[in-house]
Amino acid sequence: MEPSSGSRDAGPAVPPVAAVLPAGGSGERLGAATPKQFCALQGRPLVSYTVRAMERVSWISNIIVVVSPENVETMKSIVEKYGHKRVTVVKGGKTRHRSIFNGLKVFAENEISNHLLRKPEVVIIHDAVRPFVEEDILSKVVMAAKEHGAAGAICPLVSTVIASAADGCLDHSLERARYRASEMPQAFLFDIIYEAYQLCTDYDLDYGTECLHLALKYCKTNAKLVEGTSDLWKVTYKRDLYAAESIIKDKLSQQVYVITGVEEAVAKIGFLLCESLKSQIKVEAISIPQSKSDSHLQNIFSGQCYNFVCVNDKKYAIQGTMQLLDMLEKSNVTLLYPLVLILVHLDISENISFSIGSELLTTIKKLAREVKKKNILVYGLLIQHK
Amino acid sequence: MEPSSGSRDAGPAVPPVAAVLPAGGSGERLGAATPKQFCALQGRPLVSYTVRAMERVSWISNIIVVVSPENVETMKSIVEKYGHKRVTVVKGGKTRHRSIFNGLKVFAENEISNHLLRKPEVVIIHDAVRPFVEEDILSKVVMAAKEHGAAGAICPLVSTVIASAADGCLDHSLERARYRASEMPQAFLFDIIYEAYQLCTDYDLDYGTECLHLALKYCKTNAKLVEGTSDLWKVTYKRDLYAAESIIKDKLSQQVYVITGVEEAVAKIGFLLCESLKSQIKVEAISIPQSKSDSHLQNIFSGQCYNFVCVNDKKYAIQGTMQLLDMLEKSNVTLLYPLVLILVHLDISENISFSIGSELLTTIKKLAREVKKKNILVYGLLIQHK
Repeated sequence: MEPSSGSRDAGPAVPPVAAVLPAGGSGERLGAATPKQFCALQGRPLVSYTVRAMERVSWISNIIVVVSPENVETMKSIVEKYGHKRVTVVKGGKTRHRSIFNGLKVFAENEISNHLLRKPEVVIIHDAVRPFVEEDILSKVVMAAKEHGAAGAICPLVSTVIASAADGCLDHSLERARYRASEMPQAFLFDIIYEAYQLCTDYDLDYGTECLHLALKYCKTNAKLVEGTSDLWKVTYKRDLYAAESIIKDKLSQQVYVITGVEEAVAKIGFLLCESLKSQIKVEAISIPQSKSDSHLQNIFSGQCYNFVCVNDKKYAIQGTMQLLDMLEKSNVTLLYPLVLILVHLDISENISFSIGSELLTTIKKLAREVKKKNILVYGLLIQHK
Repeated sequence: MEPSSGSRDAGPAVPPVAAVLPAGGSGERLGAATPKQFCALQGRPLVSYTVRAMERVSWISNIIVVVSPENVETMKSIVEKYGHKRVTVVKGGKTRHRSIFNGLKVFAENEISNHLLRKPEVVIIHDAVRPFVEEDILSKVVMAAKEHGAAGAICPLVSTVIASAADGCLDHSLERARYRASEMPQAFLFDIIYEAYQLCTDYDLDYGTECLHLALKYCKTNAKLVEGTSDLWKVTYKRDLYAAESIIKDKLSQQVYVITGVEEAVAKIGFLLCESLKSQIKVEAISIPQSKSDSHLQNIFSGQCYNFVCVNDKKYAIQGTMQLLDMLEKSNVTLLYPLVLILVHLDISENISFSIGSELLTTIKKLAREVKKKNILVYGLLIQHK
């Protein structure tokens, strides 16, 4: 689902949607030295999962990650290491609101960035520590923001909310059904939220936390509230890091990467395989030239997937398999779970004899035995293809 | 810390403190078939961890677990399997409040239970799905309840709380600093909370959730609010089960069981070892006669600890070790983590020669090699003791 049918077109009809991710928190509630957005889950920083969740959405044209000044270089190296695209790293302010404001300025002022990014019609604001956001809710808040000027995801309250009196005793409790927890993502017409930030007081910037409140107070915009899902939770405490890691592991085991060579016949089989798998399992496809050792490719294998299907021409069997195994071994995934690699070798020669040399078979079997010790399970198929 | 210096005495001066654990939830937010309080974490139901947290507190005399009628037998079998003491299982009502009310009735009415339990001065109410509650906070709420009539743990709000208007748009957001999340445990003078439940309406019983609110509304008791810790969270969503399991694993690896035989010299060494370890690691001690195979003991080993030190007389070395290894193998802990067993054999004979027979040594080494395959790591010490 896309927020606008025109947004995928190259034409200028619909201005792009951008996202600002405040990632400047110190993580004091976590009780750890590393701010939570930089904590590694399966070897990869939390913020990188959140950036990836945004990146997957084709209609988000710019992703602004706002980090505290001392973490700018760390964040830039994360962007490079994990091959993130469309990301601009921006220096944050002392508080959440000041950081978000800085993030918005890259579309409007030359102060923050040397080149102004193209101003979006709608801007999404989403916490860097909510990695499991899905395209569906992003699309819903964007569409609601286009209509209402502002929109935000909400969830039911888990606990009763109470007000205390000056003596530390209960003053009153709120009726749970009447209230909601304000979560992220939120979305705004750019002009509205930017104006709200320009108009608001230093007190707001220093002590406030809620963007919807600023839009209401300074632009008289009552945000549309969109029911969110329980995926939208925020990594706050150490237990949340545990939970996030378990969810990531769960998701990893339910996805498969299909790797194909660049030859036409091979790429076509890979495509057909993806199509038939995608109703049952999350499947991603990648096409690689056999000769190239790509550092971006290496990153794909690092802790993102446990299951691979490699479709290739028989004549590249040994070379391709060895290269792939080498990359998989270097990933740290196998420390935790066995990694499964299914080799599909296509016999696309004109030769009528359907066979695989015994030397080739022995070599592959030997390779499979060796890597099994390293927790990589290799299975093979030879298919005659015309 | 104890809520009253007299509470440990056998004398009747201070009536006992009791705890009521509502455990009737259906777990619909979890999205699983099993209600969350019965979900297994490291092979043990969540509710059993919470019961154990209460049981460890010596001044809680009765623990009432209230479950839905269809789960009474399940709960009773959990109590038996994990050797819980001081627990009474009570049939719950349709809602949370009705269940708590039923739990309180076992101290006041013959309706629920055939034998009335001794009415406590203070009753703790705590959710069965908050397993990490510590004695410190229980003690604080009990002391505050004695003084104020009612008390409850509170925590900072993680999200902003908002009120929506009839059109689904934002009406207003609450200033986060002025409000708190009401958590558990709560404690009440028994007479106050019981009266509140007797006076409250069917509407309260069917739609309310907050005990502090009932005490305020019907008994004019403003509960004392006690700052809680982040341990008090409630297992609500599937991700919380992941988090709880990880925390349990973490705690397990940081605790050690010291097992000793019943001979005086041996028990004394075990005691000294516990004393010197307890500043660095959570340590529990158990003394067992070597000849006895105890089902309660078996339960202790099931998923509760990874590290054991067994102190024993040299003459029981083989027999004791084999018995212990047998129990440890039967636990399901080793599926996930290696279990460490340190054998300390004391030479307490008058014989001046400090030695261990080569036959004995060979047997133990062989045992150690065998169980290593099963993920049990055995180390040994022989100490001459006079």
